[in-house]
Amino acid sequence: MDLTSLLTTSDAKIVVILLDGLGGYADARGGTELEDADTPNLDALAAEGSSGLAEIVGPGITPGSGPGHLALFGYDPLEFELGRGALSAAGLDVQLQAGDVAARANLCTLDDAGNIADRRAGRIPSPEAAPLVERIQTEVSLEGAELTIRHEREHRAMVMLRGPGLDHRIGDTDPQQTGVPPNPPAALHPDAGRTAELFAELERQVRKILAGEKANGMLLRGFDTHEDVPSFADRYGLNAAAVAIYPMYRGISRLLGMDVLRQPEDLEDQAALLREAWADYDYFFVHHKATDAAGEDGDRDAKIAAIEAVDRIFPDVMALDPDVVMVTGDHATPPQMEAHSWHPVPVLIRAERGGRDEVTRFGEEFARSGMLGQRRMSEMMPILLACAGRLKKYGA
Amino acid sequence: MDLTSLLTTSDAKIVVILLDGLGGYADARGGTELEDADTPNLDALAAEGSSGLAEIVGPGITPGSGPGHLALFGYDPLEFELGRGALSAAGLDVQLQAGDVAARANLCTLDDAGNIADRRAGRIPSPEAAPLVERIQTEVSLEGAELTIRHEREHRAMVMLRGPGLDHRIGDTDPQQTGVPPNPPAALHPDAGRTAELFAELERQVRKILAGEKANGMLLRGFDTHEDVPSFADRYGLNAAAVAIYPMYRGISRLLGMDVLRQPEDLEDQAALLREAWADYDYFFVHHKATDAAGEDGDRDAKIAAIEAVDRIFPDVMALDPDVVMVTGDHATPPQMEAHSWHPVPVLIRAERGGRDEVTRFGEEFARSGMLGQRRMSEMMPILLACAGRLKKYGA
Repeated sequence: MDLTSLLTTSDAKIVVILLDGLGGYADARGGTELEDADTPNLDALAAEGSSGLAEIVGPGITPGSGPGHLALFGYDPLEFELGRGALSAAGLDVQLQAGDVAARANLCTLDDAGNIADRRAGRIPSPEAAPLVERIQTEVSLEGAELTIRHEREHRAMVMLRGPGLDHRIGDTDPQQTGVPPNPPAALHPDAGRTAELFAELERQVRKILAGEKANGMLLRGFDTHEDVPSFADRYGLNAAAVAIYPMYRGISRLLGMDVLRQPEDLEDQAALLREAWADYDYFFVHHKATDAAGEDGDRDAKIAAIEAVDRIFPDVMALDPDVVMVTGDHATPPQMEAHSWHPVPVLIRAERGGRDEVTRFGEEFARSGMLGQRRMSEMMPILLACAGRLKKYGA
Repeated sequence: MDLTSLLTTSDAKIVVILLDGLGGYADARGGTELEDADTPNLDALAAEGSSGLAEIVGPGITPGSGPGHLALFGYDPLEFELGRGALSAAGLDVQLQAGDVAARANLCTLDDAGNIADRRAGRIPSPEAAPLVERIQTEVSLEGAELTIRHEREHRAMVMLRGPGLDHRIGDTDPQQTGVPPNPPAALHPDAGRTAELFAELERQVRKILAGEKANGMLLRGFDTHEDVPSFADRYGLNAAAVAIYPMYRGISRLLGMDVLRQPEDLEDQAALLREAWADYDYFFVHHKATDAAGEDGDRDAKIAAIEAVDRIFPDVMALDPDVVMVTGDHATPPQMEAHSWHPVPVLIRAERGGRDEVTRFGEEFARSGMLGQRRMSEMMPILLACAGRLKKYGA
C-alpha cells in the first residue's frame, strides 16, 4: 500500500523534538541518562501521551546519522540511502543534483618520491587549510566539469564535480596507508572512464597548486552521487521546517525538501524560531545535538545535562499548543561506548487523539510498557500523520 | 512459508467473537470503553488465557470493514483486497462473479440544464427510492449485459453488470460536486471501452425512466469487480460458519466461502444459533455490530453497554466447551472520534494449550502486557490454528 494514496489535509501542527543520540542503556552503574535525568516537563508529557521504544534500522544495527534521520522522517533506511558523499555535501550546505559526483577529501603530505608521508598533513589546523582549499577552488580549471571544493575542518574537505556524463563509480584514491603513492582514480564501470580522467586531472592541478606546502596533495574516498530520495512534501503532503543548528542536520532536512529556517544559536533560540515560524508550517523538526556530543565524549553527566536543557525549554514549545508532539532520538549514544549504538530509543507522542497509557515518566524502562510498543522508528511517522488527522481510512 | 503445507486436521472447535469497532483509547476523561465496562465473564476468560494487542493493517492506518475482517480471518489486508463494489454487493447479498462490474450508485437530482442540483436527491426517503430502483431494474434493457440494481437505503443503491468482456476500469460518473453535469463513464483502459458505452446507455435509459421525479438521475462511483480471494476452507482446511446479523458481514463471510447461517435476531439468538450448528463446523465467526455503531454515534455509554451485552451471553458460549476462543475487534471505533481509527485492538485467546499470562482483565491497558504481544491481526489466525492442533511442525 502506498501511504500517499491515503493522505488528506488537516491544519494540525506536528512538532518533532529530536535529541540526537538520546538512547542509552542501564548497567551496574545505574539507569540510562534519560531515566536518571530530572525531566518534569517531559514526564508530564509522557503522562498525558503514549510511549514506546524504537529500533532505528533493525535489531543490533547501529545507525549512522543518515539512517537515523531517514527513519525519524518515516523513510525505511533499508530502502532509502543518503550516501556518504551526499551527507558530506549536505553537511557543508552543498546540495547535490542528479549527475553530480562528490567525494570526501583529505589534504595530505606527499614525500619527494610522491609517496604518502602523512594522510592528514599533520592534522593541519583549519586556519592554514582553508586558504589552500580556497586556492584550489580558484585556480583549478577542468574541461567540461565544474569543481566545487569546500573546506570542512582541519585536513577535511568535500569535492564535487558537476557536468554532463559524469559517473560516481570511481575507486578511492586514498590507499589508507603511508609509504605508497595515492591510487590513480580508477573507473569501476566502463561509463566512469571520463570522470576518472577528470579526477586525475584535478589531482595533477592540485599538486601544482599546493607544491611546497606541508599539505601538498589530496586523497579522495567515498565517491558518491545524488540519491533520489522522494521529498517529505511528496510523501506526506506536509509543509515542513527544520529548526537545526548544525550543518549536517540542516543539510539532511534540505535534501528531503524541507525549508531550513535561519541558523539558531541555542535551544532558547530554537524555541523562539519555532514561535516565529509557527503559522507557516505543518511540521517542525527541532534538532538538539548536545546529547549525542556528550555521549560521544563518554560524559554521562553532560548527557544528562543536555537532556535537562531540552526539558527546560519544553514549556515554550507547549505554549504554542501543538496538536501532535513527538520527542525521541535518532539512535542511542551510550556514554559507556562513546559511540552510536543499536539500543532501542525511547519515543513519546502526545496528541489529542493519540491516547494515553499508564506511563508517567519519559525513559527507556518506562517506555517499554507504553502503548506505542516496540517498533521500527519509520513506523512512527504514519502514527504522527494519523494523530494529525492526515490519513484517510484504508479500504471500504 | 506456505501455511497450507503445515495444515493437519483436528476436531477442535474454534469460536471467534468479534465486537465490531471494539478498540478505543484512554484520555483525560478516563479509560477505554472496554477497560471501563463491567465484564466479569470476559475478565475470567482473560485470566485463564492470553492477551495482546493487534494492529489491523499497519501503524497509523485506519481500516475499513473489508481490511478489518480480512485481517481477522488471517488474510494480510495489504495483500488481499475486498473492493468497495464487492463489499457493497456483499452487503446486499449479491455475490460478484469473475467479470462482473459493480459500482455504488446515488440517486440524484438534475436541473433542466442537466447539471447536478443535489447529489443525493434530497436524501430521498427509502420508501420513495425503492420503487424507483425497482422500475430501473424492470425497465432497463442493455445489449449484451444483464443489469442488477439493488436499493440500499435512502438515495443509495448498488449497480452491477454481468456479461462477456466487461472491464471495471471505468472512471466515476459522480463529479462529487453540484452545478456540473455527471461525468460520462470514461474507459480508464482500452479494454474498458465497451463497458463504458454500456454504462452510458444505462444512464440514458435511467434518465428517461426517472424523468419528472425528484430523483431524476444516477451517479456512479467505485467501479469494481470480483476479487479473487482464496477461500477460508482452501487456506485453513476449516469448515467455517458465520453467525452474523448484518448483511455486510454476512456478505464478507460468503465471499470467503464460509457457510452463512440463518440471520439471527440478536445476541441471544446468535448464541442459540451457535448451539444449533455446533456439531457441524470447526470454526464459528460471531459478529456483534452494536459496539461499532455506538462508537460511530460518539456514545461512550452505549458502547460500554454493547460490550457488557456480549459479556452476558458468554456463559452460553462457554457452555459449548469450545477448544479455542478468541475475542477481539476488527478495528477501533473510539467514541471520541465517532469513526474508525488506527488504534490497536485488544485480543484475548483462551485455549487449553494457548497458555495463560498474568493478565486478569480484558482491556487495552491490560492486554499490553499479555503474552500475545503487539502484532498484526493477521498473525492471530496461525496462533488459533496452532491452539486447535491444526498446524504440523515446520522442518525436521
